[in-house]
Amino acid sequence: MPELVAGAREGRPRAVARLISLVEGASPRLREVMAALAPHTGHAYVVGLTGPPGVGKSTSTSALVSAYRRAGKRVGVLAVDPSSPFSGGALLGDRIRMGEHASDPGVHIRSMATRGHLGGLAWAAPQAVRVLDAAGFDVVLVETVGVGQSEVEIAAQADTSVVLLAPGMGDGIQAAKAGILEIGDVFVVNKADRDGADATVRELHHMLGLGEARAPGDWRPSVVKTVAARGDGVDEVVEALEKHRAWMEERGVLAERRARRAAWEIETIAVTALRERIGDIRGDLRLTALAERVTTGATDPYAAADELVRALAR
Amino acid sequence: MPELVAGAREGRPRAVARLISLVEGASPRLREVMAALAPHTGHAYVVGLTGPPGVGKSTSTSALVSAYRRAGKRVGVLAVDPSSPFSGGALLGDRIRMGEHASDPGVHIRSMATRGHLGGLAWAAPQAVRVLDAAGFDVVLVETVGVGQSEVEIAAQADTSVVLLAPGMGDGIQAAKAGILEIGDVFVVNKADRDGADATVRELHHMLGLGEARAPGDWRPSVVKTVAARGDGVDEVVEALEKHRAWMEERGVLAERRARRAAWEIETIAVTALRERIGDIRGDLRLTALAERVTTGATDPYAAADELVRALAR
Repeated sequence: MPELVAGAREGRPRAVARLISLVEGASPRLREVMAALAPHTGHAYVVGLTGPPGVGKSTSTSALVSAYRRAGKRVGVLAVDPSSPFSGGALLGDRIRMGEHASDPGVHIRSMATRGHLGGLAWAAPQAVRVLDAAGFDVVLVETVGVGQSEVEIAAQADTSVVLLAPGMGDGIQAAKAGILEIGDVFVVNKADRDGADATVRELHHMLGLGEARAPGDWRPSVVKTVAARGDGVDEVVEALEKHRAWMEERGVLAERRARRAAWEIETIAVTALRERIGDIRGDLRLTALAERVTTGATDPYAAADELVRALAR
Repeated sequence: MPELVAGAREGRPRAVARLISLVEGASPRLREVMAALAPHTGHAYVVGLTGPPGVGKSTSTSALVSAYRRAGKRVGVLAVDPSSPFSGGALLGDRIRMGEHASDPGVHIRSMATRGHLGGLAWAAPQAVRVLDAAGFDVVLVETVGVGQSEVEIAAQADTSVVLLAPGMGDGIQAAKAGILEIGDVFVVNKADRDGADATVRELHHMLGLGEARAPGDWRPSVVKTVAARGDGVDEVVEALEKHRAWMEERGVLAERRARRAAWEIETIAVTALRERIGDIRGDLRLTALAERVTTGATDPYAAADELVRALAR
């Protein structure tokens, strides 16, 4: 295990892949791994990408990877499908499309899906991000497949959240319904060579209230047009991301967001642990011993319950 | 509070009533009360009475109270309505019908309903039984209003469970559906002066498999016919109860049942406590401090979650 952690810190692809598999499989050794990785985290810039199917998310992700690589950055990609119980399968197409980066040691691409464990991916994705962070990737792109509640939740845990749309899909309305307008720091209208791109941009400007006055400290979301398949506009997306990052750093917002993300991670893990303990109570042998003490009047049910909860909390 | 506990132990009605109100209102001082009462519990014989509406449960309860009073026993009655959010109201009619015992200091009658607190009556009823037990009542009758799941659960927590039926209501089938056939130690066919009483008894014999061979250690449920309004057959019910009690004592079954009841009480209280803790997590200030330590890499989310759970478990 220490070897694996050391390997991952040196950025060795197989060590990184094995550690993410431990996360995905909710391995009991995760605690050990996460404790070893903790001191090396906090350096990666985490970007979430979400949007309705068909907007070209994986093409855009691939184009962003290329742009960051040109700037000399090491890039990790986490493609997350909360709705699929299978890992790899549903996203295999994406991985093949990302093939151009397959032989690049500065890029690590990984698909993740729930394996039915408690808390699901909402819980596992941030841990996989920690692995990539500790492995020294400068940028980690977290791409979610759809726009369901858990996708939005995952995307909202990023330093910067990118919402992708495309013209002529009524996407603005779809996005509003899914609640992704609120989480977007940067909006990308992809396939901007198609009819209706400007209408989509206008719709977005209207829905985001970009024409209105804003409190001085508020971030004004960027809207960028791209044709990701040709690489058009992708440098502008990177520019918008860097602008948002600088804005957050200046105001302490980045630290705030990361603290909020950490709180959310801790909460998710703690709730999962407490739920498991509730399930454990019926089968706990200590319960039988406590029950006997209650029947003899040596203790009362409240004190016994306290004792049981303390015992379960270790 | 010690005065109240002392008063209840001397059997003073107002002290008993106030302690049960504390139970019903899920008072934070309950722990203290239950700890003080614990050494004085374990003496009362707890009888659960359940059955479909219209079988004459409160008339039967009242008749049983009279029978036990004739034998010189002090009797507590807990009339429980898990479906009603109001205390007193729905059961007022019953209490008036029980009026004949109102001036008898050897009888304490109490209606209980959920007050919307966590766990509801399933949790509160056994605590109220503890109060009556510690107050020196020899017999505690727990009567539930209907045959829903929580009624059956409450009735099953007794030393002996009585299932009441009446002729001509298709009660046998109703009872089977509600799962009360399994919990009955003694079956009472009330209103036995009506047509169909013998058919109901035969139906019961059949459904309970009373004609079949039984393992030597198994209790063979009694079936008793009564006309509770006239007091007919009520002494036979008491006889059946005492027979069941003696059978349980001989075989150590009474101690087993009480240990199971205590385990169930502890479990219910512990689960409620853990659920409350889950709810507390988001608002816990310690979470913010832990999150900051995670963002700086001083600790990892798992260790932080462990720390939070330990802190919540006190």
